[in-house]
Amino acid sequence: MLGIDFGGTKVALTVAPAGATGAPGATLPVLEVTRLETRGFEGAAEVVRRTVEACRALLASRAGELVAVGVSTFGIVRDDVVRLAPNVPGWEGLPLPGLLREEFGGTPVYVANDVKAATTAELRWGNLAGVRDGIYLNLGTGLAAGLVVDGRVARGSHGAAGEIAYLARHADDLRVPRHAAVAARVQDGAEPDAARAHLEEYVSGIALAERGTELLGSPVTAAQLFERGDEPRVRTLLEDALDALGLAVANLCVTLDPSRVVVGGGMMGAASSIMPRLREAVRQAVPYPPEVVPARFVDDAPLYGAIAMALDGDTPATRPIM
Amino acid sequence: MLGIDFGGTKVALTVAPAGATGAPGATLPVLEVTRLETRGFEGAAEVVRRTVEACRALLASRAGELVAVGVSTFGIVRDDVVRLAPNVPGWEGLPLPGLLREEFGGTPVYVANDVKAATTAELRWGNLAGVRDGIYLNLGTGLAAGLVVDGRVARGSHGAAGEIAYLARHADDLRVPRHAAVAARVQDGAEPDAARAHLEEYVSGIALAERGTELLGSPVTAAQLFERGDEPRVRTLLEDALDALGLAVANLCVTLDPSRVVVGGGMMGAASSIMPRLREAVRQAVPYPPEVVPARFVDDAPLYGAIAMALDGDTPATRPIM
Repeated sequence: MLGIDFGGTKVALTVAPAGATGAPGATLPVLEVTRLETRGFEGAAEVVRRTVEACRALLASRAGELVAVGVSTFGIVRDDVVRLAPNVPGWEGLPLPGLLREEFGGTPVYVANDVKAATTAELRWGNLAGVRDGIYLNLGTGLAAGLVVDGRVARGSHGAAGEIAYLARHADDLRVPRHAAVAARVQDGAEPDAARAHLEEYVSGIALAERGTELLGSPVTAAQLFERGDEPRVRTLLEDALDALGLAVANLCVTLDPSRVVVGGGMMGAASSIMPRLREAVRQAVPYPPEVVPARFVDDAPLYGAIAMALDGDTPATRPIM
Repeated sequence: MLGIDFGGTKVALTVAPAGATGAPGATLPVLEVTRLETRGFEGAAEVVRRTVEACRALLASRAGELVAVGVSTFGIVRDDVVRLAPNVPGWEGLPLPGLLREEFGGTPVYVANDVKAATTAELRWGNLAGVRDGIYLNLGTGLAAGLVVDGRVARGSHGAAGEIAYLARHADDLRVPRHAAVAARVQDGAEPDAARAHLEEYVSGIALAERGTELLGSPVTAAQLFERGDEPRVRTLLEDALDALGLAVANLCVTLDPSRVVVGGGMMGAASSIMPRLREAVRQAVPYPPEVVPARFVDDAPLYGAIAMALDGDTPATRPIM
């Protein structure tokens, strides 16, 4: 089993150790991870070429036959094409599954987006194991969720289930035009314009860094902002942001009635500020409030998810392409 | 196949005609419907007793063996008990599946709540047929949705998936205490208090009638309010309510990525006011905007759903109890 995780800055590769199985309750394989720079500015074709080259080198060093490839990517995977990934040149509209299928010959290739892959990892080996209805919430530079419904990761009709970055915050958001600036970067004519990522533009890691930098007049990261939470104006900003996040998470729980929400991503460095607020929002608004707990995987959840998908021979976001 | 729909004012009964099958694409059976008054004030035990008596009379008039019973009820069905149904005396906490199982001996009984049953009807014979990911939106005296995920009606971990009545409208809602007044009417100690139905208290048929009556100083129904939509102050109230509804529906679509939303319920008498607003909200905010169309079933959707559940031998909200 080969796993690949395409991230915005790094690509991670791994081969599952011999004996890793897809059986329920199987223990977590220890993965040796190879990393390369994504260097998206070189274009998608070059990123894929270098990744495949690194995969071949990795596989050459191991015994055994390649049975399946699991792949995680940013964006979403719709009709065997990557969408909603305008930030890496050439990635939007990239037929990634088809390209990898060509490279790996007759080996089945399973592709999902990073958050659905991470959800798969939590479901198999992490803090969603044994949960029939649950939510994986990724609080990182961006914002997204993986929805576990009836024991499976929901895909949605375009692979976009759980893309909560796009949640509107209030009715005025419904009158904001769709995002022509993003649309201009979309290469494929089939996606004429883009919805605004209202919630993500307000409360993600990137959004907090931008809003904090504007507030303080000097560059600040989201992590630094949380460290300065005792300053009144910073506290006001953070409480407002966590209100928006709490509202979104509570409503997600009203909608889906999960028994557990697991939270991961880079913003979990500020878990002591974030988790109590999420728990309180959920406790207050949801008829049957779920547990809200940290995710098991801090790093490499999508890569573990890619291996899980290869083991399963199934993928949350696309049909098998072979 | 026997179908029963317990509603707040009426109980509807039917026997599926011979030849009705659970095969995909099977045509809609024409149902002859028997109705009785619910008379909830007589208590749940009496409602169930009269219903079973009417069922026996109905079955005695038909040839053939009783193979399965499908049942729709208001509230939600959790652990074989009805919950979130505080408005009919004795219904909250009622072990309805068990009571009916006793009455019908060895015949399997499948129970779901009314909106999940209606969703099942739309999925089998209505405007969600062939849809893998879709939403049934019920705009009636109350407010609820049925979520079709990967071809199945989602239950949630407590049978409460899709109970969008409870959606919070803004962060201030998260600071409103849970509903002790409702809780006091809940008979079973296992449900100590109740979440507020923030959205339903603002935009359902009942809420609009209440808010309109307060605005105009004389009693008015939701339907009458829509008829008076040319009056500026009425228009302001309705636009505000439809904004709240549009926001909720758009966010439901962002979350689940459905390809189609079907809308039913008593408020569809004002479809010409409601549907364009919902379509516009969805078109503006959702990355892949779904179709928004009227439901096929105007009346008796839950009853058709009860028959569909009996045909399927499965239920969206509970495990089979036999």
